[in-house]
Formats: sequence, C-alpha cells, structure tokens
Amino acid sequence: MTEALTTGATIGILGGGQLGRMLSVAASRLGFKTHVFEPGANPPAGHVSDQVTTAAYDDAEALERFAQAVDVITYEFENIPTEALDLLEAHKPIRPGREALRVSQDRLTEKTFLQGLGLKTAPFADITDLDSLTAAIAEIGTPAILKTRRFGYDGKGQSRLKSPEDAETALADMAGAPAILEGFVDFSHEVSVIAARSPSGEVACFDPGENVHRDGILHTTTVPARLSAAQRMDAVLLAANILNALDYVGVMGVELFVTSQGLIVNEIAPRVHNSGHWTQNGCAVDQFEQHIRAVAGWALGDGQRHSDVVMENLIGDDVNRIPELAKDRDTAIHLYGKAETKAGRKMGHVNRIQRQG
Amino acid sequence: MTEALTTGATIGILGGGQLGRMLSVAASRLGFKTHVFEPGANPPAGHVSDQVTTAAYDDAEALERFAQAVDVITYEFENIPTEALDLLEAHKPIRPGREALRVSQDRLTEKTFLQGLGLKTAPFADITDLDSLTAAIAEIGTPAILKTRRFGYDGKGQSRLKSPEDAETALADMAGAPAILEGFVDFSHEVSVIAARSPSGEVACFDPGENVHRDGILHTTTVPARLSAAQRMDAVLLAANILNALDYVGVMGVELFVTSQGLIVNEIAPRVHNSGHWTQNGCAVDQFEQHIRAVAGWALGDGQRHSDVVMENLIGDDVNRIPELAKDRDTAIHLYGKAETKAGRKMGHVNRIQRQG
Repeated sequence: MTEALTTGATIGILGGGQLGRMLSVAASRLGFKTHVFEPGANPPAGHVSDQVTTAAYDDAEALERFAQAVDVITYEFENIPTEALDLLEAHKPIRPGREALRVSQDRLTEKTFLQGLGLKTAPFADITDLDSLTAAIAEIGTPAILKTRRFGYDGKGQSRLKSPEDAETALADMAGAPAILEGFVDFSHEVSVIAARSPSGEVACFDPGENVHRDGILHTTTVPARLSAAQRMDAVLLAANILNALDYVGVMGVELFVTSQGLIVNEIAPRVHNSGHWTQNGCAVDQFEQHIRAVAGWALGDGQRHSDVVMENLIGDDVNRIPELAKDRDTAIHLYGKAETKAGRKMGHVNRIQRQG
Repeated sequence: MTEALTTGATIGILGGGQLGRMLSVAASRLGFKTHVFEPGANPPAGHVSDQVTTAAYDDAEALERFAQAVDVITYEFENIPTEALDLLEAHKPIRPGREALRVSQDRLTEKTFLQGLGLKTAPFADITDLDSLTAAIAEIGTPAILKTRRFGYDGKGQSRLKSPEDAETALADMAGAPAILEGFVDFSHEVSVIAARSPSGEVACFDPGENVHRDGILHTTTVPARLSAAQRMDAVLLAANILNALDYVGVMGVELFVTSQGLIVNEIAPRVHNSGHWTQNGCAVDQFEQHIRAVAGWALGDGQRHSDVVMENLIGDDVNRIPELAKDRDTAIHLYGKAETKAGRKMGHVNRIQRQG
C-alpha cells in the first residue's frame, strides 16, 4: 500500500474499546468504512463501525478473513499477540509498524531504545529474581517501583517499594512475570505530546497537554500545559526524534516528566492516547483523524489548536454527572456506550472549551 | 417516553443518507446506539450505525420490527409516507412530531401555517389547473415559480415562469402533481436559522448562517451572516415562534430571505439542515448532537459558537479536490462515504475555521 486510500476503503481496527470507537468515527469523516476485530461481545467501537469480527487473537481463520476484508490494519492498544500480528501482516500492512509494537510492548526494550536515542528516562534495571532486585535497589535506591515488562496499563501490574524491605512482596506481586525496577523521578508535573508521522516522513505534533492522574488513571489533561517556550520545543523535537527512529506511521502518545534537569520520557504508546482526547474540541483535525490520515497516507493536520481545552475523564460513577454536565454550554460530552458502569472503568470524557474574553 | 434516554438506548433513524450518518455519529458521543431504516442498499449512515434495516416504507413487518427495536424514532428527511408514520407511531414516539411533518410535507400547508403565525412569505397561490394558474399569474405576476406541493428538494419539481406565456409548459412540468405558484421575492441575501426545541419547551438557536446557492443547491454557508443586531434578533424570535407553534421537538432549519421589508420565510425543514453543518466545527454542541439531545430529552447546547466558519458543499466531482483540501490546516473534512460520484450529488462538505488574529 503506497497510494493514499480513498472513499470506500476499509480500515481494520484491532480492539473495540473507546479508542477504536473514536477512530471509527474519525474514519467516517474521511469517507472510510471500518471493520473492528475484538474478542469481547458488544464492543463500543462496534456501534459505529461497518463490520465487527468477534473472535479471539488466536483464531487464525478469523484473523485471515479480517485481513482479507480490509485495506490496512491499525490498532487501539499495543498488547496484541505477536503470532496474530505475523498472520495479519502476511496479508495487509499494519500501521503503526511492527518495530513500534516490539519496542513499546516491553518496558525494558522501550527504556533501552529511548536511552539509545540519547533521551532521558527514569533509572531502571532488568529484574529476573530476588538477587537482581536486591542489586538494583542498591543502585537505584528507594522509593522505586517494580513493573511487569509487558501488558501493564492504568497502574496494573505495578508494585511500589517504599524501602528495600518491600522487595520480596513486590516480586511476589509480579507473579513470576519478567519485571523492571524503575527509580522515582522528582518531577514538577507530567505533560504529553501527541505526535503523528505520515508514510512520507511528515511529522506534526499537537500542543503538549498537562496531565493529572488520580488513583493511577488519567484524570485531566489541560492545554496549554505549563511549559516554557524552550521546553515546548524540546518536547516536540524529542517526540519527532522517537517517531523518526521507528519509521513510525500514525499517532503516538509520548508522556514526559518535567524536571529541573529537563524533560524525562515516562513512556510511549504507539496509538491514539487518552491525553489527546482534548483535540476533538480544540483542533480542526483531532488525534483520531490524524491517526487515520497517517494510516491512510493522507496529508496530516498541523496540530494547531483553535481553542484551549480541559479534558476530564469520567471514571465509573462519574458518568452519573452527565445530566449536570450537559447543562454547561462549553462542555462537549463524549460517552463510550459501555453497557456496564464499573469502578475504575473509563465511561467517557468531557472537553471543556475555554472561551476567550 | 417522558424520561431522558440514557446510555445504551437506541435511536431509530428513518433515512440512511449523510444526515442520518452524522446524526448517528452524534448519537454515539452521547452513548446511544442507532438503528437506521433505509430502502436503499449500502446507506452512508449504515457505516456508523449499530443496526440497519434495509426495507421499503410500505413493508409493514419491517417497520414494526424496527419500531420494536428502538426507543425513539427520528428522521433525516420529511417526505416519509404517512402510512409508515402511522404504523411506527403506534409503537414508539416520533420526534419531531407529526404536526411538523404534516405542515412541512406540503408547500401550500406550510405557507398557510406561516402566514397564520403572522410571518411574511412570498406571495403564493394554490394551482390545480391552467385556469387557477392563469388567475394566479394575473395576481402575483411574473417572474414566478411553479412548484409541486410535495416531495421537492434541491430545486427538483420546480419550473420557472419568466412570462405568462410559460404557463402551459410549467404546468406540464408538474406532471399532474398538485402545485403552488410562488412570486419572486426581491431579497439581498438568504440566511438560515438552525433552531432546536426540547420536550420541556426549551429553545436554543445557532447563530444565523448566510447561504449561497449554485445551480439550485446550497454551495456555502458563512457564519456570521450579514445581519444587523435587530435582524438577528428577529430571525431567532421568528424561528422560536415557529417551533413553539408546532410544539416541536428537535432541530429545524428555517430559511429566510433578507429584504428591505424585513425577513421573509422561504421554507422550513423539520430536521437537521445542510446550512447547519458549520456547527460541527464552530460549536461545542453541533446541530446533529443538538437534535439527538432534543429527541432524547436532554438539556440543549446553547448554540454559541467558539469559531467563525465557512461551510462549503462538495458536489459531484468537487470531491476530487480532497487531497488538496486536506493540506489546508484550518479545513475540516466531512465525507459521506457514498459509493459513486455523480453530478449534483452531495459527496461531502468542508468547514473552514476562520482563525482569529
């Protein structure tokens, strides 16, 4: 696929959650159909997609049928099994590409990659057993945080060490999974850059947003972030550096800690990112459309915003505030259509447009 | 249905064209599913809806199944056969209601209704034969325009009379359909008000847009329109007057001629309207979401805009300009996913955000 996709083409999306849902809506604006592949029943993305395949990631036949029915494949989450990717890639291009997935699926590989680019990360060490953990604590110190190398998100698969005595408990929390110890970073705040790169190498970044977490889950993103002009430039160049190194195609979320020693890369996500949801009401081309444009080989939006925005996630029962939120004239509502409200579940978000003057 | 609809509810949409498509996307933002009823194959709205029923409007069984599968019924066009409406309404509420459809399905009824509210319209007369046409021409004069009372849109079912000699040809163009003769109005420009009313009687209007037509089809809508503060107020009050008189629920498009004698109502459309597409990139809550909010019994957006916008329709081959348009940073693209490009067919539109300063 080197030509740009045109109206009527079908974009395959792996994963049927809210990100797939909003990707599907964005694809429709460009005249594309979408086909969602999702193991779970009644996926949010399925409500706004042309086709849905309900099958497991080890169902080779379903994967083949899916790949043959679409023109290009993208995804809403990075933890897709390698075997599934191999099978899909034999039929259709996967964007972003395999290298981005390989790097971001493993925290150790990711941090090693970032340091290889000359970027700063938290101090880290590969943990295979209690001996390596003890040695790492001696070098990195406490407090520190032990994380599984793979399949972690929203604070899951993590254990904090307040002191060296927490080593055994933390290791037990990993349940035998390969892990990485990360030292704490003394940062003033977190920002993220939502960056995009096209097949031709064009890069565009949205203005960095400032993130506030609550209980390990993103709570708000505020744009513009508190950054000096120099920091803003650093953040954007650093993100472009990462995308270029991976020959990346699509949107990537790059989380950064702002410290007195400069910007430190927290993590990268090879997909549209929760901290980029504000773009839906701040920009002519939002992160979802930007991703679809890149994947489809279109020109990218320039990432400039027409409005300042504060995005707030609606987690669990927060969704009960919707009738009140609907009364606010500057609040744009985005619900995900999830059948059941659960504590900690992302049910939707709101974008508050900050009116000028 | 007096309670507001909540996440998981299904909104039935009659008509699967671009308006249904954009209504479906808006419904998804509020957590709703949509079910589209459309006689034609591969409807644009079907790409982004949860369910599609492909059936004719005289298929009683399909209509019943559709009605039973949804929580409320709305529509993207006003020319739905009365028998279908009767059948559907026996099962589920139809919003906007039947009175709005009855009035707007017939140009004669509509103009009589508007005059009954004390609003100005073009001079008009009921035409049943050559005698009544000759008499009407004598009263109204030429130039004038003969239109079928029902089922006209985008200039179809219309015939211009430059002089009284055109009477017979014009009447033949009506092919025996009941018709109305309308006198020409000397107007400086056309504007439209996109107004909304909730079940509780709350009314909200978007800022009037200024419309330019080409070959009888809307070409551009520019917001703000050229109107004095007094005209702007008149336009909004007049629209509210119409919605209240119909006990209306949903969004209505009200087309107005601006003349030296004040505002003259051209026509009303009991649905989202092409001249309201600019709201997608100018407002926190666009016309499609506003309509869904009204139909679902939610609070309405206030209609204020955060940006000035120029909307341009992409008709037929205009769609070939998309690669160039995609390069403009302030242009938001909205394509309808129609399989075939035809002359005169609305393929999409673009909203150009007018950046400040």
